[in-house]
Amino acid sequence: MLNVAVVGASGYTGVELLRLLYCHPEVAVTCITSEQSAGRPVAVVFPTLRNRYAQVLENLEPVRVAQKADLIFTALPHKAAMEVVPTFLELGKRVVDLSADYRFNDPAVYEKWYEPHMNPENLKEAVYGLPEIRREKIGDARLVGNPGCYPTSVILGLMPLLNKRLIDPSTVIADSKSGVSGAGRGAKVENLYCEVNDGFKAYGVGGVHRHIPEIEQELSLLAGKPITITFTPHLVPMDRGILSTVYARLTGTVSVAELVKLYAEFYDGEPFVRVLPAGNVPSTAHVRGSNFCDIGLAVDGRTGRVIVVSAIDNLVKGAAGQAVQNMNIMYGFPEAMGLEGLPLFP
Amino acid sequence: MLNVAVVGASGYTGVELLRLLYCHPEVAVTCITSEQSAGRPVAVVFPTLRNRYAQVLENLEPVRVAQKADLIFTALPHKAAMEVVPTFLELGKRVVDLSADYRFNDPAVYEKWYEPHMNPENLKEAVYGLPEIRREKIGDARLVGNPGCYPTSVILGLMPLLNKRLIDPSTVIADSKSGVSGAGRGAKVENLYCEVNDGFKAYGVGGVHRHIPEIEQELSLLAGKPITITFTPHLVPMDRGILSTVYARLTGTVSVAELVKLYAEFYDGEPFVRVLPAGNVPSTAHVRGSNFCDIGLAVDGRTGRVIVVSAIDNLVKGAAGQAVQNMNIMYGFPEAMGLEGLPLFP
Amino acid sequence: MLNVAVVGASGYTGVELLRLLYCHPEVAVTCITSEQSAGRPVAVVFPTLRNRYAQVLENLEPVRVAQKADLIFTALPHKAAMEVVPTFLELGKRVVDLSADYRFNDPAVYEKWYEPHMNPENLKEAVYGLPEIRREKIGDARLVGNPGCYPTSVILGLMPLLNKRLIDPSTVIADSKSGVSGAGRGAKVENLYCEVNDGFKAYGVGGVHRHIPEIEQELSLLAGKPITITFTPHLVPMDRGILSTVYARLTGTVSVAELVKLYAEFYDGEPFVRVLPAGNVPSTAHVRGSNFCDIGLAVDGRTGRVIVVSAIDNLVKGAAGQAVQNMNIMYGFPEAMGLEGLPLFP
Amino acid sequence: MLNVAVVGASGYTGVELLRLLYCHPEVAVTCITSEQSAGRPVAVVFPTLRNRYAQVLENLEPVRVAQKADLIFTALPHKAAMEVVPTFLELGKRVVDLSADYRFNDPAVYEKWYEPHMNPENLKEAVYGLPEIRREKIGDARLVGNPGCYPTSVILGLMPLLNKRLIDPSTVIADSKSGVSGAGRGAKVENLYCEVNDGFKAYGVGGVHRHIPEIEQELSLLAGKPITITFTPHLVPMDRGILSTVYARLTGTVSVAELVKLYAEFYDGEPFVRVLPAGNVPSTAHVRGSNFCDIGLAVDGRTGRVIVVSAIDNLVKGAAGQAVQNMNIMYGFPEAMGLEGLPLFP
Repeated sequence: MLNVAVVGASGYTGVELLRLLYCHPEVAVTCITSEQSAGRPVAVVFPTLRNRYAQVLENLEPVRVAQKADLIFTALPHKAAMEVVPTFLELGKRVVDLSADYRFNDPAVYEKWYEPHMNPENLKEAVYGLPEIRREKIGDARLVGNPGCYPTSVILGLMPLLNKRLIDPSTVIADSKSGVSGAGRGAKVENLYCEVNDGFKAYGVGGVHRHIPEIEQELSLLAGKPITITFTPHLVPMDRGILSTVYARLTGTVSVAELVKLYAEFYDGEPFVRVLPAGNVPSTAHVRGSNFCDIGLAVDGRTGRVIVVSAIDNLVKGAAGQAVQNMNIMYGFPEAMGLEGLPLFP
Repeated sequence: MLNVAVVGASGYTGVELLRLLYCHPEVAVTCITSEQSAGRPVAVVFPTLRNRYAQVLENLEPVRVAQKADLIFTALPHKAAMEVVPTFLELGKRVVDLSADYRFNDPAVYEKWYEPHMNPENLKEAVYGLPEIRREKIGDARLVGNPGCYPTSVILGLMPLLNKRLIDPSTVIADSKSGVSGAGRGAKVENLYCEVNDGFKAYGVGGVHRHIPEIEQELSLLAGKPITITFTPHLVPMDRGILSTVYARLTGTVSVAELVKLYAEFYDGEPFVRVLPAGNVPSTAHVRGSNFCDIGLAVDGRTGRVIVVSAIDNLVKGAAGQAVQNMNIMYGFPEAMGLEGLPLFP
Repeated sequence: MLNVAVVGASGYTGVELLRLLYCHPEVAVTCITSEQSAGRPVAVVFPTLRNRYAQVLENLEPVRVAQKADLIFTALPHKAAMEVVPTFLELGKRVVDLSADYRFNDPAVYEKWYEPHMNPENLKEAVYGLPEIRREKIGDARLVGNPGCYPTSVILGLMPLLNKRLIDPSTVIADSKSGVSGAGRGAKVENLYCEVNDGFKAYGVGGVHRHIPEIEQELSLLAGKPITITFTPHLVPMDRGILSTVYARLTGTVSVAELVKLYAEFYDGEPFVRVLPAGNVPSTAHVRGSNFCDIGLAVDGRTGRVIVVSAIDNLVKGAAGQAVQNMNIMYGFPEAMGLEGLPLFP
Repeated sequence: MLNVAVVGASGYTGVELLRLLYCHPEVAVTCITSEQSAGRPVAVVFPTLRNRYAQVLENLEPVRVAQKADLIFTALPHKAAMEVVPTFLELGKRVVDLSADYRFNDPAVYEKWYEPHMNPENLKEAVYGLPEIRREKIGDARLVGNPGCYPTSVILGLMPLLNKRLIDPSTVIADSKSGVSGAGRGAKVENLYCEVNDGFKAYGVGGVHRHIPEIEQELSLLAGKPITITFTPHLVPMDRGILSTVYARLTGTVSVAELVKLYAEFYDGEPFVRVLPAGNVPSTAHVRGSNFCDIGLAVDGRTGRVIVVSAIDNLVKGAAGQAVQNMNIMYGFPEAMGLEGLPLFP
């Protein structure tokens, strides 16, 4: 039985980790922290956990946390993560970090989009935790930087095309749409029910969203050359889900059937990537609550563009589920263990 | 491994059964039927099941279904169920019926609220499948009439009060609110997104809803005398969930703390009933996707009334989950097997 | 042209007043205040007003506000209202107050449910602004206490029954459901989109909601004797709307048709009350954005109870629209002026 | 007073026309037709109209309709419109057609994307009713082809850029998102509440949506050369609203401030186009129920692309409101008459 800690559990990602870990047969959750709710039973903060989680939320004292667990999920805001992760590693623990602090190969990129990096040494060894790209390195990692939600959807959508050099990388546009849980549980007017319900908007327009460098890092590695993309996030009046519609100019002629075949082969054996038959389009409703990434493909013959549509649950494959998947790989558990739950529909 | 069939799988209850059974370690789904979609892969009708259910939907030929399974879940409209259930029983199969056809002790009651009953013989032996009331009879049953969604929420909410004779039964009013999945998957204008979204309404006002006799049957048994209630259903713009607010006049003075204690003792050991501490009120959001029934209690000292608020997921504890719970009891599986999933929040 | 001020305009009631007043041909909005957004253009705070309202939000300095306007709408929290209303009155202005501060005949009731009253003198002369009850007094009033949203829906629903002594007043139960805008625009976790969406809950259960004494005051006046009710509010995942389902025991036998006729006669000539034919049930979706109160009636012959269902838009008939209606009465404008807009559907 | 008919009033566009026309001081609605609900009072079909519209829905007999009205709004499906419009014109009536039947300059385009055109003669004289492009021709028109909802949002978003030749037309990608009312009021499973709620999907991916040729026709006219675009529609879980995110490569360097200035000048004096200051992004919530088109602008300097975001209410500026605006122009009424209502928020 693996003892794990969930650090920063008062947000939506934290409670989703607790939901998933509850059904994982090889894991015991031995420590749950929350600065703002320390001292309160976690089941009072999240009534969904009542009668199933008896734990009381603790303060985040890294040494004490490390004494209680062998693997630590850090579900903290960026910067807060790198304040504690070094201690966990020094004490011999392994970490899956769900913040942005350990996702970048180059600290300079982090510093351009975020702020000064306090822990470049550990950043060096951190593995970007997208299993479909680097399952093996994850297996050996002490520190996994769990991917962002938007990047997961865009990278999985584009991988086979870049791998096969079928598109002009300078033409990539990702138009992404997210449910509101992606904005977190902070008390902000803009995320009130009445501000969001029955409306739709873009935000972070013009190449300013912090997930851009993360997407570009991985796409560039896949393409073997630097890629710059246009990325626009939007807010959908729904709890969960990200749907990315990705456009690129094809370098040659290829049919949808050929693309579907290519994708199906590329992702053959992947437990959580589902390539849809030609003519089918993903919906976030079909992955809700699950670790799936559904991918649909279309070609606009009139303009020579490919359109890739990918759908994930931002809290699962885009955060907590992928973190559990990474844990499974790190500890040699079956990769889908604890992630077998089918999507909730409706 | 128990072979089970899901009959009538193209509705929301059907797909919910398939979602739950997929995670049940002792069950194999060997037959899935749908009259309207026979011949199509079930994962095409419900894309949530893609890559996990390979089965093709079959026509409902009772003999063939019975050959494939030992337990049959009938998720059919009322009347359609009693057209096939007798055959299943004759062929030695056990049945959990999710329609109203086998819920009534007295065929005359069924006939008053529904239509002539075609199978009164089997109705006699059928067990009303609310585990918290008659777990033992369910264990031996060949035929279980799975309770309606509204009745489940109202009966569980009132049981301890009636059991202890704390209320005047003639004063019971149940004001219930349901998500839209309770209305089924039929193509009706009134259930279109734009008709329902951002609005709230009552329906079936004035003592005409068919769940009334079912509630009254069980409450009367609990009280030891006939009870007539006022019941009003409402439609909430949400997918899942029923919240019932039940009012009754107290026969004596009792505090909320005493009521909470009473309920906690009454439901002690029940795996799925959660009695909330005084001052807490249930929300359907806290049981979404789970088999829980959350119950909150309040006393209006000014008027001498008790107010019980109960919340379930209508598709789980109100239908498919309770059916699986009944199956577990019938076959001696741990009662919560396959129903461990925590509520999805948000 | 009447010069009006909207004081406390950064909430949902404030912006709704501005929306309605924009279409009122006899009114000029000459002053808009907001403590938290003073100095910012109101159209920046509420982009719906862009290109239509050029005003900048001001601080609430009562004397300056009074200099700019003859009628002042105070859309402030309770207590904040009675801190400024006396000044407005002293300076010869008329006031429609949308808080609870001037709704009660008896300061002791206010003090029991709210806090010490700072302005009992003006409270004495204030008129409870429900036009259907006391249109004439409103016409002459200097100070109108605009009714609460829940009370508007419950009182209008019960008036004819009490007036004709058709029910036992001790049996009144009001089960009310409100959209989220009723909770205001404050940044609270509990009103975040993800906390509210796709869920339904009760709150303030057990006779503790502050709208109870307001309802009881008016029902008691109508009945000619003190009435105590049970009232439970609920939160619906929708922006606007209140639906109240009100139960009471009939003192005699009366048919739905007779009740509909009674209500239709009682409300004959009322511009905003719509009595629905027997068999019809109101929906908040059918009054959205309008000043209508729709009322449906049913009798449960099995239990001898009447069920009244009433629907309003909480921001219009339950707040800003009723305030404009009161203004129209106070100044002799046609009562529906500026309130002609039909409900927005879908 | 102008007598108008609304033909095909049982859909969402029809009821929206009735809502808007009710507040128009120069118009009397003298005839309302609906094939499926003929004989029923329109206020029974749409309870929002109760007590305000006494009319009974009629069958669509063109001659009788033409006897009753001078202007006819045809809110029919495509093909059904061109079956009756010729009769209206022959009888000397004017028509605003809300279907696709009279939007194309070239019948061959219509026939490629729709079906054989039955009335090419009248098509020739029809004016594409986007006031911001051809206000003058609309004024003289007998027959106006009211624009589609998606085209309105995309064309208004791109006009100034094409007019000033600031973008490479071959790089235009329009990623559009629509509320569910755009799918009509037909009873289809895919538009049920539970199918749509809390989910997001693309549809018509790959250059197949019928609004493409309409967009391309107008953009090509503006650019002075043929333009082919990539267009992907999506479905948002909300009632109303379209938000289009449009991408194009800039031919030179231009700042957001310059673009905002350009747009503001281009649309100077337009009653319904609101150009947002730099840094502001439109939301459909801010135009809900109104005839506004809000436009926001951003430049992605990293990739040399401009991103235009435009928001409309699909039922107003995208259908019924624009139709009323066209009527106002045709009859010399003030262009905003009957369309003064501010957006409903929340």
